[in-house]
Amino acid sequence: MGDAGEAGVTGEAGMAGERGRVAAIIGGGVIGGGWAARFLLMGWEVRFFDPDPAAADRLAATLENARRALPGLHDAALPQEGRLAVCATISEAVAGADWIQESVPERLELKRKTFQKLQEHCEPDAVIASSTSGFTARQLQGCATRPEQILVAHPFNPVYLLPLAELVTTDDNPPERIEKAEKILREIGMYPLHITAEIEAHIADRLLEAFWREALWMIRDDVATTEQIDAAIRMGFGLRLAQMGLFETYRIAGGEGGMRHFLAQFGPCLKWNWTRLMDVPELDRALIDKIAAQSDAQSGHMSIGELERARDENLVAILRALKGRGRGAGAHLNAVDAALPRPALDISCPILTVSRAVPLDWTDYNGHMNEARYLQAFGDATDRFMEIIGCDADYIASGGSYFTAETHIRHLDEVRAGARIRIETLCLMGEGKKLHLFHRMFEGERLLATGEHLLLHVSLETRRSCPPAPHIAARLEEIATAHAALPRPEGVGRAVMGGR
Amino acid sequence: MGDAGEAGVTGEAGMAGERGRVAAIIGGGVIGGGWAARFLLMGWEVRFFDPDPAAADRLAATLENARRALPGLHDAALPQEGRLAVCATISEAVAGADWIQESVPERLELKRKTFQKLQEHCEPDAVIASSTSGFTARQLQGCATRPEQILVAHPFNPVYLLPLAELVTTDDNPPERIEKAEKILREIGMYPLHITAEIEAHIADRLLEAFWREALWMIRDDVATTEQIDAAIRMGFGLRLAQMGLFETYRIAGGEGGMRHFLAQFGPCLKWNWTRLMDVPELDRALIDKIAAQSDAQSGHMSIGELERARDENLVAILRALKGRGRGAGAHLNAVDAALPRPALDISCPILTVSRAVPLDWTDYNGHMNEARYLQAFGDATDRFMEIIGCDADYIASGGSYFTAETHIRHLDEVRAGARIRIETLCLMGEGKKLHLFHRMFEGERLLATGEHLLLHVSLETRRSCPPAPHIAARLEEIATAHAALPRPEGVGRAVMGGR
Repeated sequence: MGDAGEAGVTGEAGMAGERGRVAAIIGGGVIGGGWAARFLLMGWEVRFFDPDPAAADRLAATLENARRALPGLHDAALPQEGRLAVCATISEAVAGADWIQESVPERLELKRKTFQKLQEHCEPDAVIASSTSGFTARQLQGCATRPEQILVAHPFNPVYLLPLAELVTTDDNPPERIEKAEKILREIGMYPLHITAEIEAHIADRLLEAFWREALWMIRDDVATTEQIDAAIRMGFGLRLAQMGLFETYRIAGGEGGMRHFLAQFGPCLKWNWTRLMDVPELDRALIDKIAAQSDAQSGHMSIGELERARDENLVAILRALKGRGRGAGAHLNAVDAALPRPALDISCPILTVSRAVPLDWTDYNGHMNEARYLQAFGDATDRFMEIIGCDADYIASGGSYFTAETHIRHLDEVRAGARIRIETLCLMGEGKKLHLFHRMFEGERLLATGEHLLLHVSLETRRSCPPAPHIAARLEEIATAHAALPRPEGVGRAVMGGR
Repeated sequence: MGDAGEAGVTGEAGMAGERGRVAAIIGGGVIGGGWAARFLLMGWEVRFFDPDPAAADRLAATLENARRALPGLHDAALPQEGRLAVCATISEAVAGADWIQESVPERLELKRKTFQKLQEHCEPDAVIASSTSGFTARQLQGCATRPEQILVAHPFNPVYLLPLAELVTTDDNPPERIEKAEKILREIGMYPLHITAEIEAHIADRLLEAFWREALWMIRDDVATTEQIDAAIRMGFGLRLAQMGLFETYRIAGGEGGMRHFLAQFGPCLKWNWTRLMDVPELDRALIDKIAAQSDAQSGHMSIGELERARDENLVAILRALKGRGRGAGAHLNAVDAALPRPALDISCPILTVSRAVPLDWTDYNGHMNEARYLQAFGDATDRFMEIIGCDADYIASGGSYFTAETHIRHLDEVRAGARIRIETLCLMGEGKKLHLFHRMFEGERLLATGEHLLLHVSLETRRSCPPAPHIAARLEEIATAHAALPRPEGVGRAVMGGR
């Protein structure tokens, strides 16, 4: 976090607080803490109540995680962080609050008692939302004083990052109250999915529960371990679910015939014993028609070809995001890359430091490679050059590295996704703590861009510049000497607009 | 694709082909075509057989999608694309092939007949892999001449992007054959998940089938539409599944108590009717111990706090990837950003064009914001400036835009994830087709970097420079005139190393 906008944890409630953006968080486990963090970072005042004395510490840890992750997720500044008050009583927490989020343990009697207590002290027009994953809104409203206030807003862990909130209501909730709830959820960045069916566990957890029970059978029967099941998900269909869900994915699998063709092709499998969970709906004409019509309404504005390309763009972007973190399928793909052959190293000419295709996620609204990706590719070229001179992961772990101090890029020509590009790197100077590189990016013989860079060797401890280790200095001298004999390329030493 | 490496579709098989990297693709639907594309792009020769005359056209479409997506997924050049031969007979396709991939329709008798036929012509040491999603390896080996050749390699659509291949074998497959299969799958970028249990539908499709059946119940019972179910997945738990799977996610939900605590907390739900699929395993002590031990073996090398942070980094990276595509949860988050308040516009001073926090995925191995992200932030500042002068989405759709021609960045100080940064933009010149901008990036009062940029107005039709529309020229003149009265900041017009 920056230098502004952080709220301290205070021990008293801001009872004077103006109405309008005050949330009371009742119950502060992983879920309640996540709600508190999201409201705070979205600028709300939060009053937090949990009878467990350890809850405030847990909240502080959650808030630290959230501050690290949520603000940067957005491409605009969030409001100034709200004030947090840890309250000693429920009444203190809920008085004057606009939103009251109940996240106490999953026992119906406890939840009902909590509602009874807080309705004695809260405003009648406040939204009282339960985080319940199992109970229906009707069950919660039960014998409440003002059932119209109570609804379900079921979030997903981590609450401060995942947008989904299942908003479950009954006929007892007036439309204005439901609208208000939707508006506030959107205001704090969530995606309210409105559910009116009376069903335990709402939608997402019903799916997850079926999934989980099947997984338990596989563990019990020694079909697979937890690690194999997780790999089966994150190396494959989990990536599809993340971007399109289930039905849009299967619509594509049906080809130009869409959902109806998919159902015709895979419907018969329903008769097979493919899960240990055996109740199966009858896939009759009425159900097929219903699914096909809903799928048309959902995705019919795109052809299968368009859906395929959108899916591929999403998957490439997600997989490349995971490569950047070195996790899940990204770790696997990084290993694949490491096994691909490297171009032969020859320091007697400009060094081939990058050879690759332009990824789908490097293009922008102009349809060509985005300007920042030129620098990313040049940065990769610099990284490869670093490896060549011995400034590798081990050296960096030992406390030395090069930081880029200055960059000059000339964007000479456009390039599109899929094009094979290469970068040739010239070492103009490598003496003491200074390193001066000149990269040229080509597609075939076409020069696309040049990148001129001044790097400084730094101590990662002091963050100040200092000379590199002797083996690096020696290798640099060798390369710089070899490159000094080469012709100086056009464009070196230029300023933007000729220094105008 | 670039200027090299594409193979034409030929009508005859390269029968002379050297052994070593030849794959025969038998059955060319969505799955067979995906296999063919992956093998080709990874440098293999592919011999393709499908009795349907339309199959070659379908393959060409799949190959086009794959060429667009797969090479750029990797951060190193793939081998030169292999040669594709469309064969008239199975025997022609399989003779001399190292890998034979069967993807014919899901009927056991048809698959057995296909194996019988191809075993008459293929090499005895070739791998014969079936794409079956349902049959066990034992069922496929059935009455084959050489059962030891036959195994399952079950991929996921799109085969050219998703790494998972379920590799199912029996005792009849010698270890060397299994090793060879694993090696080849890794060589073409896949992640072989070895399964030895005799179980129909392997692992992933059992999970998916439970999921799918529950989803069908919900549609049938009018609990939710296909669109609501997809939203429940892609706005929430689908994002978690994509990066960690099920068990590692739930291990985190258990807090420092890990998997054992999670099972204690949520185990009782198994008794509740939370799915329409009712068979439930007994969550006895033996099963709890087994799951907890497997989860420890899988994830025990990381604390829950470390897992939480890794999860958050993955989720931020995935969500930001989807924001870049404007799809799924990314479309929702872009809408959230659009509703956040914009800084007030005042052209009488340097214009506040960016105000945001540094995202988790913008940092590199040095622990600070990666050099390319400085240009990304400056690019965002330029985009905002474009909006201000009227070069917005509508104007770009009408055929005009600005392209960056030259960039000079001075990296003056470091900045870390979560820091709040802002960019102030000065218009140094805006005349005719030229636009000269100078961005300064700050954290509080600390100057982090400057970015000097020359942009040229272009026609998106001719891709050549030309003057902007009059309303843009007028607005630019207004701003440039106002800014000409401001002090010229230090650093304008500089070259790297002072032009050395």
